[in-house]
Amino acid sequence: MMDTIKTTQTAITSKHLFLRAAAGAETERPPVWLMRQAGRILPQYRALRAKFPDFKVFVKTPEAAAEATIQPVDELGVDAAIIFSDILVVPEAMGLDYEMIEAKGPRFPKVIENQGDVDVLLSGSEAAEQLVYVYEALKITKAALADRVPLIGFAGAPWTIFAYMIEGSGSKTFSKARRMLYVDPVLSHMLLQKITDTTIAYLKHQVAAGADLLQLFDSWAGELPPAHYRAFAVPYLRQICAAIPEVPKTVFAKGAWFALEDLAELPCQVIGLDWNISPEYAKKATGGSKVLQGNLDPCNLYADAATIKKETKAMLQAFGGKHIANLGHGVYPDTPLDGVRVFVDTVRES
Amino acid sequence: MMDTIKTTQTAITSKHLFLRAAAGAETERPPVWLMRQAGRILPQYRALRAKFPDFKVFVKTPEAAAEATIQPVDELGVDAAIIFSDILVVPEAMGLDYEMIEAKGPRFPKVIENQGDVDVLLSGSEAAEQLVYVYEALKITKAALADRVPLIGFAGAPWTIFAYMIEGSGSKTFSKARRMLYVDPVLSHMLLQKITDTTIAYLKHQVAAGADLLQLFDSWAGELPPAHYRAFAVPYLRQICAAIPEVPKTVFAKGAWFALEDLAELPCQVIGLDWNISPEYAKKATGGSKVLQGNLDPCNLYADAATIKKETKAMLQAFGGKHIANLGHGVYPDTPLDGVRVFVDTVRES
Repeated sequence: MMDTIKTTQTAITSKHLFLRAAAGAETERPPVWLMRQAGRILPQYRALRAKFPDFKVFVKTPEAAAEATIQPVDELGVDAAIIFSDILVVPEAMGLDYEMIEAKGPRFPKVIENQGDVDVLLSGSEAAEQLVYVYEALKITKAALADRVPLIGFAGAPWTIFAYMIEGSGSKTFSKARRMLYVDPVLSHMLLQKITDTTIAYLKHQVAAGADLLQLFDSWAGELPPAHYRAFAVPYLRQICAAIPEVPKTVFAKGAWFALEDLAELPCQVIGLDWNISPEYAKKATGGSKVLQGNLDPCNLYADAATIKKETKAMLQAFGGKHIANLGHGVYPDTPLDGVRVFVDTVRES
Repeated sequence: MMDTIKTTQTAITSKHLFLRAAAGAETERPPVWLMRQAGRILPQYRALRAKFPDFKVFVKTPEAAAEATIQPVDELGVDAAIIFSDILVVPEAMGLDYEMIEAKGPRFPKVIENQGDVDVLLSGSEAAEQLVYVYEALKITKAALADRVPLIGFAGAPWTIFAYMIEGSGSKTFSKARRMLYVDPVLSHMLLQKITDTTIAYLKHQVAAGADLLQLFDSWAGELPPAHYRAFAVPYLRQICAAIPEVPKTVFAKGAWFALEDLAELPCQVIGLDWNISPEYAKKATGGSKVLQGNLDPCNLYADAATIKKETKAMLQAFGGKHIANLGHGVYPDTPLDGVRVFVDTVRES
């Protein structure tokens, strides 16, 4: 707890708007960044991406990852960079290889089905040591940014990584992963703990390599009933947040409106919100204890400039402080760059 | 309103548990049925399905649809039958043809892109008259059921049908459909109104053919921000519910936890709930004004009998009356039939 207080105080006096806001300080305006800002919305990203026929080679080339990370800072003037990587590097480091299939998403040729499958997985430092290319990318990025904006590190939340490891791909229902929680809760906890141990070691390395804040993405949070989210997701989020007091943490649990009260009690500083959640609901559910990040509907950025400006201002007003402006989901790849610019500029001029 | 009161009073004195419960009467136990109970969980359905290589031919063969509808009543002893059909027969009747691709889902070769596309669509009675095969299936089912259990008719909610007509298939984000609401709200309302007019005519025919209750499925409700759900979904649900006072109505808006207060004000009797929503939250948000239907996690039925029994009982207790027992989503096709049986029997023995 002492560490957290020290961290918070360091952040409050930071020169960086983003870190001051994340620490809960009153700021001249909310900082702004976008999930997936390092991505296909930028022409310079598409040019860089074209050099790597294999997405995974791209992710594993630190210089390229660093370049992709910095592009949106140069192009859009966002208040933070987020390291270009993928949440699935963690299961891969644990020994479960995946393929990234163009326009389809990830696929795991082998999935976790039983105790034996869990037993052979690497975990903790041993797994995290496989991810040197991420730490290298962070170091290169950090040096190249030269303290212009803070650098966000990230990982998938344990339930979301678990879901991919059991299901083997994206899914409309994630029913295989959800089934496992009912039919073998003991094995489920065992796997979740291995993922958690790995994630903690991974994120500690990220901090050592220069990450100023860490975000946990729980993309499939909304697939679980509230009792299961409390039993199989929240305790592992808590372990991770508690294990890394050195930097502020953001938890983004998409679809987990029903768990906002639980998330508000985590030892993290920021809660990310999807676009289903009204600022009023979020403020009430979290009791003002956290900084809130989000949550404009990404589809809003397809609209004309006047509409984007109006809706962005309405969102800023509804949050009214203790707020980091963002979308409620990663920016969609076909979003017009001009729409993204209007969003960012509207926050910057607020 | 007078009609609604009359309908409710008729239902309260019905011999059918399901209709009494839907009318808000106190019942000896909650009725139970499952969304997608007429489907792949039943061996006799799979045998019937095997006779029709083309899913759409199956749907358009009234005798076969009636047989599929009655199978779960015979096999599981559920308290209601739901007509075997598909929500996409409505866009097809309006002039937008779809294909059902095995293991992938629906695909529309042509989608709605502009005013011209909307203008040429049939709507209202003219479209509803294309769906004689559904009314025929209802009549055959009604006669064959011989009043053993009530018969549920259904349709997709306008926003969900709109989403398919714009998007052209299922989608992880439905970003094209959501985009349309921002870039052309006028055209969006025009299309939603045409779908609504068709749905009203379609459901009136279903009632004339023997449907005792109507359910609206808003499968993609959870993709919209609250303000859009209020502007582009709720008013059309209201029109439909108000236009058919003859029978009770159920609205199941998956993912629309944020709109429960609005749904509670619709002229319908029952609100369907997904498994993210706790009974306590739903009761509070609807203020006791509606009968609640749901909402066990469908994945629960993969568990052993003792677990299913325990969780089903806990759910019944948490709702504690004004309740129709169901899952929080359609039963998943690979659910063991024994698990389904334990669920149904636990409610029946409660």
